[in-house]
This record gives sequence, C-alpha cells and structure tokens, in this order.
Amino acid sequence: MNAPLPPQAMRKPLPPIVVEKLKALFGERFSTSDAVRDHHGRDESPYPPLPPDAVVFARTTEEVADLVRLAVDHRVPVIPYGVGTSLEGHLLALEGGISVDLSQMNAVLAVNAEDLTVTVQAGVTRKQLNNEIKASGLFFPIDPGADATLGGMAATRASGTNAVRYGTMRENVLGLTFVTGEGRIVRSARRARKSSAGYDLTRLLVGSEGTLGIITEVTLKLYPQPEAISAATCSFPTVEAAVRTTIETIQMGVPIARCELLDALTVKAVNARNKLGLPELPMLLFEFHGSPAGVAEQVAAVQAIAREHGAAAFQWANQPEERSRLWEARHNAYFACLQLKPGSRSFTTDVCVPISRLAECITETIRDTSTSPLPAPILGHVGDGNFHCAILADPGRPEEIEEAERLNRRIVARALAMDGTCTGEHGVGMHKMDFLRDEHGDDALELMARIKRSFDPQNILNPGKIVRV
Amino acid sequence: MNAPLPPQAMRKPLPPIVVEKLKALFGERFSTSDAVRDHHGRDESPYPPLPPDAVVFARTTEEVADLVRLAVDHRVPVIPYGVGTSLEGHLLALEGGISVDLSQMNAVLAVNAEDLTVTVQAGVTRKQLNNEIKASGLFFPIDPGADATLGGMAATRASGTNAVRYGTMRENVLGLTFVTGEGRIVRSARRARKSSAGYDLTRLLVGSEGTLGIITEVTLKLYPQPEAISAATCSFPTVEAAVRTTIETIQMGVPIARCELLDALTVKAVNARNKLGLPELPMLLFEFHGSPAGVAEQVAAVQAIAREHGAAAFQWANQPEERSRLWEARHNAYFACLQLKPGSRSFTTDVCVPISRLAECITETIRDTSTSPLPAPILGHVGDGNFHCAILADPGRPEEIEEAERLNRRIVARALAMDGTCTGEHGVGMHKMDFLRDEHGDDALELMARIKRSFDPQNILNPGKIVRV
Repeated sequence: MNAPLPPQAMRKPLPPIVVEKLKALFGERFSTSDAVRDHHGRDESPYPPLPPDAVVFARTTEEVADLVRLAVDHRVPVIPYGVGTSLEGHLLALEGGISVDLSQMNAVLAVNAEDLTVTVQAGVTRKQLNNEIKASGLFFPIDPGADATLGGMAATRASGTNAVRYGTMRENVLGLTFVTGEGRIVRSARRARKSSAGYDLTRLLVGSEGTLGIITEVTLKLYPQPEAISAATCSFPTVEAAVRTTIETIQMGVPIARCELLDALTVKAVNARNKLGLPELPMLLFEFHGSPAGVAEQVAAVQAIAREHGAAAFQWANQPEERSRLWEARHNAYFACLQLKPGSRSFTTDVCVPISRLAECITETIRDTSTSPLPAPILGHVGDGNFHCAILADPGRPEEIEEAERLNRRIVARALAMDGTCTGEHGVGMHKMDFLRDEHGDDALELMARIKRSFDPQNILNPGKIVRV
Repeated sequence: MNAPLPPQAMRKPLPPIVVEKLKALFGERFSTSDAVRDHHGRDESPYPPLPPDAVVFARTTEEVADLVRLAVDHRVPVIPYGVGTSLEGHLLALEGGISVDLSQMNAVLAVNAEDLTVTVQAGVTRKQLNNEIKASGLFFPIDPGADATLGGMAATRASGTNAVRYGTMRENVLGLTFVTGEGRIVRSARRARKSSAGYDLTRLLVGSEGTLGIITEVTLKLYPQPEAISAATCSFPTVEAAVRTTIETIQMGVPIARCELLDALTVKAVNARNKLGLPELPMLLFEFHGSPAGVAEQVAAVQAIAREHGAAAFQWANQPEERSRLWEARHNAYFACLQLKPGSRSFTTDVCVPISRLAECITETIRDTSTSPLPAPILGHVGDGNFHCAILADPGRPEEIEEAERLNRRIVARALAMDGTCTGEHGVGMHKMDFLRDEHGDDALELMARIKRSFDPQNILNPGKIVRV
C-alpha cells in the first residue's frame, strides 16, 4: 500500500442539497446506510474499507449523466461500482462522495450474431452474458476468474486465462458509451469491426478505471463456441522447463487457448487442501479449442514439446467433467494458497514481462520470496508473460504488510528492469500510482494528467486513482 | 474534397532564423528545392500538392525532438512523412512548415524472436521488415497493399487484406516512441504483451496521423510463418451470396487469413487488362494459413459453404506460383480499374459496416453508382465489413470531382446509417474531417480537440488534419 490513505479530515460530508436532489433522482435507490456504504467502499484488496458518503443504484445512462452533472455543480466525487472485485483499492472513497452502483444496469441490449458482437449494459457480468447468449453458438472468452461486470472489466483492462488466444479487454471492446466528468454522454465508436476515424476514445476508456468517464454500455466481440475443447496438464522439473515449453508452443503457432503455470508451492497448497496427489513440481495446465482434428493436432504438438523439456505426469481430457477435474488445481489455487497461512490475506502482485524473461523473472522471485517469512505461491498466465505472486500476510500486522509491500516493490522493480509492466491486468487503482511513474516516466504521466483534465476538468471521477492532478 | 484548400495567404514563409538553424541541425539533409518540396506535399489522393516550405531528413529520435522544439519556438508546422502512400490529403502542408522525412530512419532495431516482437525505426517499410526477419521464422502480417512505412501504418491505423485474422495496426502495435508537440520524447509502453498500467497512450497514437506526436520507433507483434498456405477463388451469382458465404465462414470459426471481394465491374476491368477470362460476376478470394491438415480442413469447410450459396468456378492452389496466379485479379485490380476511364484518378471511399449490413450496403452502393457517369468498381476486405469504391474521375474536371464527392458523401451517409464508420483503414486526413463529426458527434469531437491540445498545445503537429482546434 505505497499510497498512504489520506486523512479523514480531507473528507467533507455531502451538502444537504445534494442529498435532497439524490433522493429526488433515485428515490429508493439512494442509500446512506452504513452497511451499504461499507460494502461499496472496499474491493478485494487487503485495504481497509473507505466508504463513500452515499450510494445510488443507477438504471440508465441518463441517470448517470444526471448524477454527474449534480456532482459537478457541487464538486462531489463519483465512483462507479460494478460488483467490487477489483484488487488495487480502485473503489475506495478517498475523498468521500457518491458510489454509483451499476449492477442494476444488467440488460443484454443486442446480440448481433452475424456480426459476432453483443452490446450490454455495464452491470452485466461475464457469466450472465455467456448464459444469455449460449443458444447463439457464440461466447465471450475473457475470464479474469471473478464473475466481474463487463463495465468493470473494460474499466480495468482485464484479461485472465484465455488472453493468450483471444486477447484482453483492449482487443475485445469494440466501443462503449460513457459519461464524461462534465456529464456528457459519449459513444466512443460505431459497431464496425475496424475504423480509422479519429483518436481511439474506446481504447482510452478501456483501462481508465472510472477516472475518465463512467462506462454505462459496452459493445464486445464474440467468438464461435469451439467445436472441440481439450485440456491437458503436466509437471516439469523446473519453472524454466515449463516456460520454455510455452515459448516453443507459441513460436510454433499452436493456437493454445489457455496456458497456466502453478509453481511448486501452489501445487503443494492445492494438494494439501484438495488431496489431488499431484507431483509437487511446477505444473502447466493447457486448454485447446478448435475442430476435433485441429485440437488433436495441437495436443500432439504440445506433448512433443513438453516431453523434450522433461515433462511428466501428462494427462489430458476431452469431456467437460474430466476437463474440470484436470483444471481443479487451478480453480482451487487461490483459496488453497490462503490456507498456507490461516488468517492471512493475499497481497497479489501482477507484473508482466516479455516471455523471454519470464522464467528468469519467476525464478528470481521465488529465490527472493523463499527467504521471507511470508509464503508467496505463484500462479502465472504464462502465455502472456504475466504472473501473480500471492504474498500471504496478516492485514492486522503492520510488519507483515510492510514485508509484503517490500517483496512487491522488488518484484515490480525486477519486472520493469526486464522491460515489463507493473500490472498485466489488475490495473493501477491507488496502490500502483508510484510504480506508474517508474514505468512510464514524468513526460508520459504529464500527458496522462492532461488527458484526465480533458475528460474530467473538476477531478470528480474516482479522484486519487491512476494519476494525480 | 469536402475540406476546401485554405488560401495561400495563410501561409507565412519560414523565418530566416529557422532556415539557418535547420541548416545547422541537418546540414545536407535540409532541402528547399522545388522538386523535394513538391514530392513531400502530396500523397496518393487526387489532391493537388501543397508543398511544405522545407524538408528535413531525420536520422534519430533526438533530431526529431530538436526539430520540434525549434518549430515550437517559432510556431512553425511540422508534418511527418514516410513514403507518401496515404490517401486522404494527410501530407499536404496546409499552413506550410517543415516536412520531416523519416525514410532514413530505417533500421530494424531489435528482433525478439522468443517474444514474437520486433522494434523498428518508423521509416522501415513492411516489405523491408519481412525481408529482414525472414530467417527468424516469423512475419509481420499487416498488408495495406502499398509498401508503406511502419510508422505511417501506425499513424493511420492501417490494416488491409490480412486483418480478418491478424487484426489491424491497433492490435499489432505493442508500443511506440514519439515526440510530442512540445518536443518531449515519450515511450508509450514497455514490451510486455499486455498491461493495465494507466491510459493507453499507444492506442491513442495509433491512428493519430501525426497530429499528436511524431512516431519515431514502433514495437510490433510478429507471428510464426504458417506451415502451410492455401489460396482459393470462386464466383457468386450475387454480392449477397458472396457476403453470406463470408459471414457463415466466420461464424463457423474458420480462421481465414484473407477474404477479399471483387464486384462484377472490377472483375470485368481485370479481364480487360489481364485477359484472365474470369466469369464477370462477384468473386471472393481466400487465403488460409495453418498446418497442412488444418488448411485442408478450412478449404473443405469454405467450399461447402460457398457451394450452398451458388459458388462456381472454384479454384484452389497451394504452391506460391499458383497462389499468385489465383490472386492476380486482386493484385492488379487497382490499375485495371483505372483503365476503365483513361486519364482518371481514383477517389477511393473506405467505409466499414457491421458485416450483417455489408451485402445491403454494397448492393445499394452499386445501384447508386450505376446511374452515375463515373465508373465505380468495388473491392472489399469483406471479412471486416470494409470496402473501397474506386470512383474514377478526371481531376481536371470540377464537375467530375463534384460527382465523385457526391457519391462518396452518399456512401458515407449510408454506412453511418448502418452503424458503420466513414473510414475503415485510410484515416481522416483533411478529407473526412466533416464526416468525423457526423460519425462521432460534437461531444466526442470536443474531447478529441482537448486531447490534441494536451499533446500539441501550439498546434504545430500536422495542423488542419483530423480535428480543428
């Protein structure tokens, strides 16, 4: 938590006129109850909650625009909220203000199956979307683990296990509707699959974490459900061998859909919790999508490469239940890891490096963390060069928090030295603002601050996140 | 040419002190000769040239930064120049100033084969790049037809025939180095494959057409050279049948690499010039990349779909020479079309619509243009919903120019009404500035103008293009 929490003195209570107008606008959908405020002042980071002064539940883009115009008039912060699964303090109300909960904006507005696009309200979650479009034969692949809202996933430029094949939210948002910091409603792009028409407002909003605009609708790319899916797992003598296997697989052009790494400590944690009896070695989990023949070809290619790198305990599965069993280790990893240190929370790092440096980066990280009193198991989206170190610390013990932050700083510095990024997919929030300067430099940060002022001249949209203005 | 050319009275000659300093900075690489200036004041649009006051040939990013700082001090426009293949008046020196030619910045700086990335100076052309990296087993797929520079392709968000599978420059630029309108050197991103670290400066520069920064280096994604490549062509009774074939192919998840449409008039033009004897009907050309078995599977799938839609004259080829022969119609189409009206130039439209509307859009366009005195053959990147209508007019006859613009306005209006864009890949330049407002609306244009001022407070970078400030 390298950004210290601001003194509560900076917070001013909402002016009574604002409360009155919010009640008029939102009626029953306005709340100042402690429980509701507390719920909206936290995310899944270990930060203690910092609740907003009020919460409103919006149902339309126009309501959000009305809210923002009211907030501008009274200089009150507005923080968009989906389902609260962000990880870097994105949702904390540093300067108080109003949390606008978008979870009731949960309509799938238009499925355009021929165009492979769908337009949703921001509060639709990815699982809801995939349920609702199942009959179309299409699916939306981005899977960050949590059942996040698509607005939130766009706002944090999320990705997850499928990114190696299907890309991240950066590649999969075709356009979005957002409300600027002046309460204007802007649609960033038409529904054409490509366009060279002016500055890319879509990509600017993707990853802006509620600081440039409140995203209220998103148009996404969809993909045909694969005819065949196969899963495979295998163990390697070293992290290096597992990463080499991944690099060669990608270089050969094998279109793997998922490629996840568990380090030996994570496998041990999973074994302890779920009695899986896996070899306690670095492990790769693959998923293959395609035609039946294509998938068989992919599996054969990967098996051959993996064997050359000393892979053992190779297992593969085609049927849904068998696939789930194989991937059980991955699905349970997070909770299994937490049990390595009961009562702890995970301070989850998120660096991403060029894949040629990944083995070195992970190996050095393991060497570094192995001398720490805190367990730090590793999970990697290894096809992208992105990995998470779940540093387990007791949030009630300042010395453990400081140790977790010390390890995190070293991991980030290592990644930046390897031409990587401090965050592959979790975003900046308030936690990584200083790292952002290390990564991009003063001139880029100045450009970002100017962009922020262009979209939000009064600095009311999620203030204190990403850039200081 | 809906943006009228400004009166030459707006142009002020370069102050003598600037000339002196440019000579000191660039020596022999500074020119004010008429031939050099004329060459740098035009692109491949039918606009008459508007030469800059001087041309410099830069060799380093630092030189470009020095140039921009000098230009800021004296409020002189700076227009970046690659090889001059843009199509919308991007390079015309509306207010005079200095053209900075980047073609001598043509070094491939780093091939990172394991990461599937390459970093090049902005003046490297795509063909040069593919020649230089051939031995690595990798290639760069984006192919806009012309052998453009990679800096120019990034600046116009170019795409072309391979975009249906590999995406556009938007998806394939990992990061870039640019010089801001204040002469600061900024690197937009590290070399990680994904990142959520702050606002997406990379995507903001991609498509900014020299108005936000001068791109001097680009880091690109590379792909493994496909093990097998196959090409196919076939003819259809109607445009509708050809587009339906494309839609169903994509919906089935067949990973076609290229899918191009020639309308009947274009086929007729090609037959007339190259004696190919093709049926004078709408025609699709495909290219398939993958493993030998995978490619065979793709070809079979597409053949089956095409036959259901009445395809005839199906031909396919695996060997390079045979493939080239099949694609001859496509490669020669532009010049063949020009011969439909000797002495004409092509006023090339570039709309892109959701593919579900494409058949309707093309069919209505053909109906519309068929009553015009100007021939208007059509070429389409049909997998993306993007097509070009090459309206052939004599640039010396104002009534023909006006007719071409009238047809273009109707094509753009039709595309916008179908939720499409005025430009799929050619960019805005000076030609489409009014369309940009129709497409995005006043609020989005205001945001774009603020972004422009953030990056270029003095409005010296390619002024008068994309947005008015």
